[in-house]
Amino acid sequence: MRDKVRAMSDASQFLDRVRVVLLHTTHPGNIGATARAMKTMGLKHLVLVRPKTFPSEVAVARSSHADDILEGAVVVDTLQQAIGDCQFVVGTGDRTRTVPWPLYRPREMAQHARSLPDDQQIAVVFGREDIGMTNDQMMMCNAQVQIPANPDYSSLNIASAVQVLVYELRMAALGEDAQVPGRRDWDEAPATQADIERLVEHWQRSYLNAEFLDPNNPKAAMTRIRRLLARAELDQIEVNILRGMLSTLDRWVTRARAGD
Amino acid sequence: MRDKVRAMSDASQFLDRVRVVLLHTTHPGNIGATARAMKTMGLKHLVLVRPKTFPSEVAVARSSHADDILEGAVVVDTLQQAIGDCQFVVGTGDRTRTVPWPLYRPREMAQHARSLPDDQQIAVVFGREDIGMTNDQMMMCNAQVQIPANPDYSSLNIASAVQVLVYELRMAALGEDAQVPGRRDWDEAPATQADIERLVEHWQRSYLNAEFLDPNNPKAAMTRIRRLLARAELDQIEVNILRGMLSTLDRWVTRARAGD
Repeated sequence: MRDKVRAMSDASQFLDRVRVVLLHTTHPGNIGATARAMKTMGLKHLVLVRPKTFPSEVAVARSSHADDILEGAVVVDTLQQAIGDCQFVVGTGDRTRTVPWPLYRPREMAQHARSLPDDQQIAVVFGREDIGMTNDQMMMCNAQVQIPANPDYSSLNIASAVQVLVYELRMAALGEDAQVPGRRDWDEAPATQADIERLVEHWQRSYLNAEFLDPNNPKAAMTRIRRLLARAELDQIEVNILRGMLSTLDRWVTRARAGD
Repeated sequence: MRDKVRAMSDASQFLDRVRVVLLHTTHPGNIGATARAMKTMGLKHLVLVRPKTFPSEVAVARSSHADDILEGAVVVDTLQQAIGDCQFVVGTGDRTRTVPWPLYRPREMAQHARSLPDDQQIAVVFGREDIGMTNDQMMMCNAQVQIPANPDYSSLNIASAVQVLVYELRMAALGEDAQVPGRRDWDEAPATQADIERLVEHWQRSYLNAEFLDPNNPKAAMTRIRRLLARAELDQIEVNILRGMLSTLDRWVTRARAGD
């Protein structure tokens, strides 16, 4: 548990070093939706370069209670001011450049950012909604990040693009803590192999006794039952419930025979 | 190239087997934004269970030219009708259930879906904006998928949640084709180790000649130059440009000395 708390704290410290920079955003709703996307993934720092309309009630409404991000947003005049103190800056865009810039996919970008020393500042830059980032803006970045979108329709909404990139940053931040939930959070202990063996034996005995299985070849059906149980990765409560159901059958068979 | 085309075709066939199901959606804008998110990642099939307002001009506007997805959307009365022919159904949500359902992270969900046989139909289900999926709805699914959001603020906009999940489905579909762009798409051939050696030799000769480097210890500075060049993974044009710049220095030094 203490390990888990420490991992979360490391993750937060990493995400605190990442800022999202929006260039010349036209629609304030997109600024609000960006704030919301950031907050859901644990990012805080939003920098706006000459937004058309800000502050804005529309932005606050679309932020859906992520208005603390909007209140903390820094507004500046130039991209240079927004990223001057950063050591790693990635620009977003799907256009091929005259001079191709070093190119990352979102996952590799996030993993690279995560691998940087703890004192480095990181920026992810998004261009204006209609034109994206210009060549001059991209050339101020260390690298370009491209979401591998449908080549026939690659126009992600700006807040959706932010959501994908900050999601990957959060996944990189959480590392293994994000990767393996599944059975770890299961409410009951998993059944042991011996539990399953006893269950299968009981199952076969009960249905032989109930004259369902062929006494000359009970395996035919039981192999399929066994495979089903294996695949389902039963927990102990489930084993107990199934055993109880088999015992119920046993009792009804005994009772019926006693009444014969 | 033929391999790449085949891979894309496999990817499309997989994405064609995935449908997005929206339950009782309240805001038509979210239906439009969902259509846009789907189309950017190459998905086509949208099923709406009793949407409050549909068809809708608001949905068309927010879909931003993904209106073909809206036109093809199927409207049904129940979740059962939406998923009855599917073999793998995942519900989305961040609530812990009384009886925890098998739980996936988005990446693992997408990888599992990708691993299923080619004739299986897959559905990803999203609940109403304000309440998410109910327990009864979740229990009709094979598994639950959770985006590992900020525990203090986990409320993704529904279209943003769709974007993250369809992004992971596309990433799983593309497989290695999505993973390694970077230098593969570079416009020039990378420099060879021998190119770099000749460049470093030239560099050292020029700056010794120009009386910049310490003739007793040229390595001190040159090791740092060499490391910088190594890190930058130069291409051949860049090597040529740097060699040209060194030659320019050589000529000016020669010319200056001739004029002495």
